[in-house]
Amino acid sequence: MTQPIGFMYDFSSPNAYLAHKVLPDLAERHGVALTYNPVLLSIVFKATHNQSPFQAFSENRQKTAYLTHDLHRFARRRGISFHMSPHFPPNTKFAMRGAVFAQGKPWEVKYIDAVFDAIWVHGQKIDDVNVLMDVVRENDLPARKIREALGDAEIKQQLKDQSKAAVRSGVFGVPTMFAGPEMFFGKNSLANLELELSRT
Amino acid sequence: MTQPIGFMYDFSSPNAYLAHKVLPDLAERHGVALTYNPVLLSIVFKATHNQSPFQAFSENRQKTAYLTHDLHRFARRRGISFHMSPHFPPNTKFAMRGAVFAQGKPWEVKYIDAVFDAIWVHGQKIDDVNVLMDVVRENDLPARKIREALGDAEIKQQLKDQSKAAVRSGVFGVPTMFAGPEMFFGKNSLANLELELSRT
Repeated sequence: MTQPIGFMYDFSSPNAYLAHKVLPDLAERHGVALTYNPVLLSIVFKATHNQSPFQAFSENRQKTAYLTHDLHRFARRRGISFHMSPHFPPNTKFAMRGAVFAQGKPWEVKYIDAVFDAIWVHGQKIDDVNVLMDVVRENDLPARKIREALGDAEIKQQLKDQSKAAVRSGVFGVPTMFAGPEMFFGKNSLANLELELSRT
Repeated sequence: MTQPIGFMYDFSSPNAYLAHKVLPDLAERHGVALTYNPVLLSIVFKATHNQSPFQAFSENRQKTAYLTHDLHRFARRRGISFHMSPHFPPNTKFAMRGAVFAQGKPWEVKYIDAVFDAIWVHGQKIDDVNVLMDVVRENDLPARKIREALGDAEIKQQLKDQSKAAVRSGVFGVPTMFAGPEMFFGKNSLANLELELSRT
């Protein structure tokens, strides 16, 4: 049995959203499982002196225009709904705490789908806990338990710990996918991930 | 007849070298021609406030380590010879003037192959006109005419003009591939280029 693909994500990244939409089919094609590893991008960026491509290249209008075009084209060519968030960059601190609480639960992927879609399909302001909880309820997720987890100090600490552990594994941004020890960064490395999987 | 793939390159980029190795097969698979468009990266970078990823992320060791790993892995998984140049970043001003002179000549691709390999397979210091001319001679290219072109003011101007024209088309770095009006940046966008070509 091949090791599962490890998907390091934060809801705040449009590129992570697009990778998320593509990964389940990719994993199925190669007969491998997919595990979800929430990280808080702000912690990862701080630890690695990194920033989002839109910040890093803010003085390079040609490049930021291309990055935006590439997001929309990637989505369109694969039939994925995508709209740039009117609240970019979103603060996903609470949504990511929910993701940590969701880990290993039978409704984990349902929660991840719901939150990603709320931001990148429906343009909702997920920073607001009330908006996040509306999304949770509309998707028949366990609202009371999730609401509690959002304020839970242990969950908060676990998100920090997982983010720092990811950095120690070499992660500097999202989406990042692991196939065994091999790390692949960015939605446009998915073809390289596939090549890696087809070798094993 | 579908439009050819336009490949914007500078010998100085290891990512452009890797794209160069992959593009002929890719174009053949999709039944399209491949045209070579030399640009001087220093002109492109200056015009777009851009820099190489190794410069842009110099304070992010995790990312620069990954970028280096990704170069070697991309090459290894595709059976491409590749060694990081001991003279990085090379000054390719003269080599790129030769590339402009080579455009449309029957030996154009032979020249491009020879210079890319000199830098990224054999570790030669192509900045040195004598080294460049050795490469030209070893590959039975028209040495006298090429040597003249390297000092030709019109060729020099043409390289500038082509680089600025590329910037006006949206180019901010290399490798960049055009399929009709659609622009694809970076070796890891080759799968997206293929998807684009498979639609037409």
